[in-house]
Amino acid sequence: MRHFLTLKDYTKEEILEIVDIGLAIKKNLKNGIYNKELENQTLAMIFEKSSTRTRVSFETGMYQLGGHALFLSNRDIHLGRGEPVKDTARVISSMCDMVMIRTFAHSMIEEFASYSKVPVINGLTDSYHPVQLLADYMTIKEYGLEKDLVVAYVGDGNNMTHSWIMLAAKLGFELRIATPQGYEVDAKVLEEGMQIAKKSGAVIRVCHDPKESVKGATIVTTDTWASMGQEDEKEQRIKDFDGFMVDDLMMCIAAKDAKFLHCLPAYRGQEVSESVLEGHAQIVFDEAENRLHAQKGLMVWLDRQRG
Amino acid sequence: MRHFLTLKDYTKEEILEIVDIGLAIKKNLKNGIYNKELENQTLAMIFEKSSTRTRVSFETGMYQLGGHALFLSNRDIHLGRGEPVKDTARVISSMCDMVMIRTFAHSMIEEFASYSKVPVINGLTDSYHPVQLLADYMTIKEYGLEKDLVVAYVGDGNNMTHSWIMLAAKLGFELRIATPQGYEVDAKVLEEGMQIAKKSGAVIRVCHDPKESVKGATIVTTDTWASMGQEDEKEQRIKDFDGFMVDDLMMCIAAKDAKFLHCLPAYRGQEVSESVLEGHAQIVFDEAENRLHAQKGLMVWLDRQRG
Amino acid sequence: MRHFLTLKDYTKEEILEIVDIGLAIKKNLKNGIYNKELENQTLAMIFEKSSTRTRVSFETGMYQLGGHALFLSNRDIHLGRGEPVKDTARVISSMCDMVMIRTFAHSMIEEFASYSKVPVINGLTDSYHPVQLLADYMTIKEYGLEKDLVVAYVGDGNNMTHSWIMLAAKLGFELRIATPQGYEVDAKVLEEGMQIAKKSGAVIRVCHDPKESVKGATIVTTDTWASMGQEDEKEQRIKDFDGFMVDDLMMCIAAKDAKFLHCLPAYRGQEVSESVLEGHAQIVFDEAENRLHAQKGLMVWLDRQRG
Repeated sequence: MRHFLTLKDYTKEEILEIVDIGLAIKKNLKNGIYNKELENQTLAMIFEKSSTRTRVSFETGMYQLGGHALFLSNRDIHLGRGEPVKDTARVISSMCDMVMIRTFAHSMIEEFASYSKVPVINGLTDSYHPVQLLADYMTIKEYGLEKDLVVAYVGDGNNMTHSWIMLAAKLGFELRIATPQGYEVDAKVLEEGMQIAKKSGAVIRVCHDPKESVKGATIVTTDTWASMGQEDEKEQRIKDFDGFMVDDLMMCIAAKDAKFLHCLPAYRGQEVSESVLEGHAQIVFDEAENRLHAQKGLMVWLDRQRG
Repeated sequence: MRHFLTLKDYTKEEILEIVDIGLAIKKNLKNGIYNKELENQTLAMIFEKSSTRTRVSFETGMYQLGGHALFLSNRDIHLGRGEPVKDTARVISSMCDMVMIRTFAHSMIEEFASYSKVPVINGLTDSYHPVQLLADYMTIKEYGLEKDLVVAYVGDGNNMTHSWIMLAAKLGFELRIATPQGYEVDAKVLEEGMQIAKKSGAVIRVCHDPKESVKGATIVTTDTWASMGQEDEKEQRIKDFDGFMVDDLMMCIAAKDAKFLHCLPAYRGQEVSESVLEGHAQIVFDEAENRLHAQKGLMVWLDRQRG
Repeated sequence: MRHFLTLKDYTKEEILEIVDIGLAIKKNLKNGIYNKELENQTLAMIFEKSSTRTRVSFETGMYQLGGHALFLSNRDIHLGRGEPVKDTARVISSMCDMVMIRTFAHSMIEEFASYSKVPVINGLTDSYHPVQLLADYMTIKEYGLEKDLVVAYVGDGNNMTHSWIMLAAKLGFELRIATPQGYEVDAKVLEEGMQIAKKSGAVIRVCHDPKESVKGATIVTTDTWASMGQEDEKEQRIKDFDGFMVDDLMMCIAAKDAKFLHCLPAYRGQEVSESVLEGHAQIVFDEAENRLHAQKGLMVWLDRQRG
């Protein structure tokens, strides 16, 4: 049995296999064919942080696979409060067939997984957001961008950035990260990524100059400057991120026909301009939709690993 | 593809067709036959205002049609806050097959619909409550009251009243509205209703005298004096609505065997007396149950329009 | 049609039949065979008090039986506020096929049931917790403990204790209850239990000495000292319950190979020691899982009674 907590635990082949299963399921769906491989199964979705996209994609995905998803919000369950995580993990995993957790501390999901009898999926932690990267890479494949791929991530060194590092390191593409001073990625994650990159041939560069990072990039991406729980810091962050907005000028520096990706929600006038977002709306909303398909690929893959 | 935002956008034939599909599905259900026409489909239910009746009827209805409904409460999603409505609409409609929205401003649902790739259903706005009217007319048909129909609405000039105006205008029956001074229906909605009534032969009258309005009416109906969000005004409203309670005396002025309808929740001793409500409990709770069947008719109809 | 509000209303044969149906469904499930006996049916779950275990077990159970469960939290519905319980009961039971209610006052669920057209299940009230006892007795059977059964309940005289009294009284086993002074079980419930016990041959004893109660017991069980809504009293209760923790010493006084049960959540260092809980983790988490299976047995049984 496997969990899906971070891409670090996955090989290149496994990541590509999950994405391909998702793509095949998506193709079938568009032709009205439903893969009901998870019939009779339930997915417990534990949301300590709320999220429309994650909620709708997992719940719809599970239903389309023939199963059922239970929505447990932070009003219904508090991991580690009331009862120890190890008890909650043992109880829920005795009744459900899979668990998706969206929480703050990555250690929380690791502890849950260690006591769970069923696969646990990371739906976002403060450290990683691996399901988003599955959707992103699915989109890259659909748009035929995986060859000579150069991704520039411009913005906050956060869970999204960490997951980009792991994806690049595993798949072996070039990733340039530009963050403001003081918002660098976690040094340990970067170090781990660099180690993995040595084997895959990935090139991972960090800098503080957005223009330098996007130069010649085939994909430019970013994320909100102030994630959930960082609302207090918002004003300060807006100052600190001055010059880091992805706007038309920045896209001009990127490679010809470069694409823009965003995991959403997007804050226009902050990390991205209205013009860039709407100019790339087709791929951005395909990327959002691909959460549904990529996660279905993941759940099917995890179920098959059960043996 | 069609949305269902207000009855204004629907012809008489379409309204009757939706009600008839609902009645056929109801008849089948009572015989243990389930129409699974929406199998594999998901309905996103966005509730900015909570409601037991709307929630249970849509979620049960969708399940009975073979589909699945996702409950997104105002703790899980905020239309227009965090991200623009146009983004939420594009994301949700890329993952779900239909969307039901219960919100405040009618313009919000119009904006959502304009960006949605799938049919959007109005589950209540400050301006209209069209799904309730489908249930009401279904009840009228079941009780054989559609001939020589004279409806008297006694109470607040609100979204329910507006929807009654549109139903009467489209179907061509007589509607009398009695509101207190200062609680009249929206002048623009009334004017639009009057224009439509010219073609259908509907008679729509507004006045401030409940007794005048119910005289000879075959159906008397009302709604709560203080809807959700108007709790502050409650005391003032109770004073202003003095004399507008539908009680036994008022029902005596109505036609012989006149029926009473109420969309619930009912506040006894305010807009209706305990005696009238319990005396007409059979039809009132049939009306409530018909939310389930009418909305199933609507969802099936909307799905068929997709072509 | 039958409701399931307390074990008092059920015969020994009925209780055993429900448990046996649950065991048969569990056995099938473990062999990959799903009993879809409640296909097309919906269960409304009304939670005035939240609970992960009750939620997950009923929602998963209903899905595995082919049906669908609707989660109505106390943010979505307030029994007796807004509209009278009798109206809510009539509306919900006109749309759903079964109702589970977790609330405070037992009279609330009795009133709801008296107006409901469909079976109502008590998912916990201040007075009783009968579904937990179905799971407990299922566990007792699975572990082959039903012969010469002597249960010692050590702790607060609450809804769990009341339900143990009814189970012992109906099935005819020995139950010893040790509570601190001032935390005795309800005198009326005890009197009723004693009356029923006369016919079944059950022995029910109450005392204030935990050691006396557990002596020779084949099962020792307890419950949290401060249930939901009693958080204010917690400090006082911890003092008053001094000496009532089920620890290794207490288990030594019990019969050889005595088992420990706990309905969870467990508060280590209060009603149970870490050592006892983890030493008996296998049976305790089997007991938790059996909520799922026992409640499936109950729902199937109630549906069959409909005729």
